[in-house]
Amino acid sequence: MPGMTFWFEFASTYSYLAAMRIGPLARDAGVEVRWRPFLLGPTFRAQGWNTSPFNIYAAKGRNMWRDVERQAAGLGLPPVVRPDPFPQNGLLAARTATFGEGAAWGPGFVRAVFTAEFAEGRDISDPAGLAALLDGLGQPGHEILARAGTDQSVKDRLRLVTDDAQAQGIFGAPSFVPDDGELFWGNDRLEEALAWAAAG
Amino acid sequence: MPGMTFWFEFASTYSYLAAMRIGPLARDAGVEVRWRPFLLGPTFRAQGWNTSPFNIYAAKGRNMWRDVERQAAGLGLPPVVRPDPFPQNGLLAARTATFGEGAAWGPGFVRAVFTAEFAEGRDISDPAGLAALLDGLGQPGHEILARAGTDQSVKDRLRLVTDDAQAQGIFGAPSFVPDDGELFWGNDRLEEALAWAAAG
Repeated sequence: MPGMTFWFEFASTYSYLAAMRIGPLARDAGVEVRWRPFLLGPTFRAQGWNTSPFNIYAAKGRNMWRDVERQAAGLGLPPVVRPDPFPQNGLLAARTATFGEGAAWGPGFVRAVFTAEFAEGRDISDPAGLAALLDGLGQPGHEILARAGTDQSVKDRLRLVTDDAQAQGIFGAPSFVPDDGELFWGNDRLEEALAWAAAG
Repeated sequence: MPGMTFWFEFASTYSYLAAMRIGPLARDAGVEVRWRPFLLGPTFRAQGWNTSPFNIYAAKGRNMWRDVERQAAGLGLPPVVRPDPFPQNGLLAARTATFGEGAAWGPGFVRAVFTAEFAEGRDISDPAGLAALLDGLGQPGHEILARAGTDQSVKDRLRLVTDDAQAQGIFGAPSFVPDDGELFWGNDRLEEALAWAAAG
């Protein structure tokens, strides 16, 4: 079965939209998706940014929020709620998703985090909140959070994956990389990336 | 008939794609398009950029060229040729398109400039080349270029339009603004903007 890596960052609004869409689209396309959380912060800092470019460039930021509202409405998602602060600190959520990569609960956890963040405006850096999301998926939230927050192997894995993103030329999220290495950036390219992967 | 303003910048690759697509799509949607050339340079300089962000941010630039190649292929356009230098100086072309706003030859001239630039890699700052494009449309190229290059009213109009773009929150090109003022940014939003305008 052809495969594709779905690179996402928990602070990213368009990663949210892609996470909510990718499951059924990938099934229809016959493509196996690898859900890969990474951190954009190091890439942004290397470009001299200390926050989201949507905060640095105000007009671009205003358009982004309006666009995400329109896209969410078009997808039948709940009205977008802007978390405070934006961007959220997604480190612990990313470590937890890294810990759960390949687990059956992985994609559900990712969707639950994004929904809490952008449909409910909740703080995703709160360990208790993340644990509760896992509990809601029938998983031992407290135990998983304890391991995700402290295991050196999880930290190392997320750092390695983030370095790998930069090495592959990934500069934003979401990004989609079919097995042949072609890079597609942005939620708007999800369908095209899946078609590319399926044809590969 | 509902209307929509199509804001484009001659140096912009995605403005090229939009310019080649918008005619038939707007006809099908029943939307009257106002073709509005403007300059992005002042907006970019206000953000501290002295060239295209695709030059400043190398990974983003690499992805842009690859993406435009894929999009052009998907649209049945010729293979993309990168003009040298990039971005091109589109000032004279923008003044000429400003002079021709509302004229029957306006959209044809815009498409001809973009095609020369991104399908043939030609220098669009050359007055003789622009005059030849007009000649090819059955217009008196030399005369039009002489006026577009020197008329104070044309310079003033382009400056006013460029200021207006910034005042409306336009930060990139192409942008689409239906009659009610909703802003849509990027070639990927063309269909959505037309549907919005038609529903307006």
